[in-house]
Amino acid sequence: MLDDSRLKISVIGSGNVAFHLMKAWHTAADLTQAPPRTLQGLPDDSDIYIISVSDNAIAGVASRLCHLPGIVAHTSGTTPMSVLSEAGVQRPGVLYPLQTFSREVPLDYSEIPVFIEGCDDGVADTLQRVAAMWSGSVTRCSSDTRCKIHLASVLACNFTNHLWTLAEQLLAGDAIPFGILKPLIRQTAAKIERVSPQEAQTGPARRHDTRTIARHLEMTAGNPRLKQIYALLSQSISDTYPENSANTL
Amino acid sequence: MLDDSRLKISVIGSGNVAFHLMKAWHTAADLTQAPPRTLQGLPDDSDIYIISVSDNAIAGVASRLCHLPGIVAHTSGTTPMSVLSEAGVQRPGVLYPLQTFSREVPLDYSEIPVFIEGCDDGVADTLQRVAAMWSGSVTRCSSDTRCKIHLASVLACNFTNHLWTLAEQLLAGDAIPFGILKPLIRQTAAKIERVSPQEAQTGPARRHDTRTIARHLEMTAGNPRLKQIYALLSQSISDTYPENSANTL
Repeated sequence: MLDDSRLKISVIGSGNVAFHLMKAWHTAADLTQAPPRTLQGLPDDSDIYIISVSDNAIAGVASRLCHLPGIVAHTSGTTPMSVLSEAGVQRPGVLYPLQTFSREVPLDYSEIPVFIEGCDDGVADTLQRVAAMWSGSVTRCSSDTRCKIHLASVLACNFTNHLWTLAEQLLAGDAIPFGILKPLIRQTAAKIERVSPQEAQTGPARRHDTRTIARHLEMTAGNPRLKQIYALLSQSISDTYPENSANTL
Repeated sequence: MLDDSRLKISVIGSGNVAFHLMKAWHTAADLTQAPPRTLQGLPDDSDIYIISVSDNAIAGVASRLCHLPGIVAHTSGTTPMSVLSEAGVQRPGVLYPLQTFSREVPLDYSEIPVFIEGCDDGVADTLQRVAAMWSGSVTRCSSDTRCKIHLASVLACNFTNHLWTLAEQLLAGDAIPFGILKPLIRQTAAKIERVSPQEAQTGPARRHDTRTIARHLEMTAGNPRLKQIYALLSQSISDTYPENSANTL
């Protein structure tokens, strides 16, 4: 591979991440895509092989790519890079795009932070170069740090979305459309573009408004799981903002 | 008051909600604002008195407005309208704007859903009229339903924001700026404009990926509260999406 040549990239997998990687790279690189089971049509001279399959399937796919001289990288947040070298890969790396991917919702690729890891500087440099083809935010980090970022993203995205689902279910009981919460959700997300979430916090738990909290807990009496979630998160908020913190600081 | 005259509105309180109500109404009504302790400058001929103070202080303020012929309404999500009549108010009502208010962050008032309650149709009609001066979404509902909407908004806004705070704290331990999560948070909020949160759900718990969940739980070993939140929300997600649901449906 020459520095000024177009990179040859093979994407293995057909999930949502693979779909969006193909879209993101389609003008900037020579692309092929192969199914993880058969690897049908996989060239043996790609510069980079991106394994974009479920975490449990990474090692199995990697073990069938050991003979290849190209870089072999996975896209997983939680899988350590060592899984690839343990499977016999010669030049392992990681290219982890931090985003929630679904086929139906278009993405601004330039906004997606990408975290890179490589077995040596050459591998990391090349992965950094291909990530920078579409992302404005490419950072190198260790497997451990990447795993922590992934955990943070589960809190920030998956759990958040689930709270909205719980709210949706709660409103459905009174035949109130979920749509009434959308302006609030928009504003909640807009706020933290300007202030940190710690500063942006509002609500009864932040105010230590025990009466409202008690009333809400009463209302969840028929739903023990929701009651538990309400109590636990309210306690966590209250403890983050001690009642007298304004006075004692 | 004639139907075609400008309404006289008095706002009692100086918090974030009062601040934004004054801004929302400033061109459409004759406004005055009075402090809740002294009620200094409060006219006795307003069509509507809006009590916008902390929930615990509503009854006390209301009891000093009993002699007034105008409508007296509070803006609380959780306080029943009966608190006003029990305090002796003659024409009680509620005008509850569903939004998270802070002084620093500007709002598109037309987007804020408002929930109205009145002791009779006349009161409800007038409150509906003043809410419609700025909001495109005005709905009547009972005190019980409003309380449920408030609970849903705590889940959707306060708890969501707190999860972002927890993510911020987690990343801070590895000196990673919270900003890397912002594109993900933007996309998480953008998704539910198009699909319901129940459909939009992604993540290890949705996939029943017990290995990743176990790894994340290990990482939270030093933070028992976070571990509890992670386990509880992951279980709630897993139970919402049974492993074989695709096959059994």
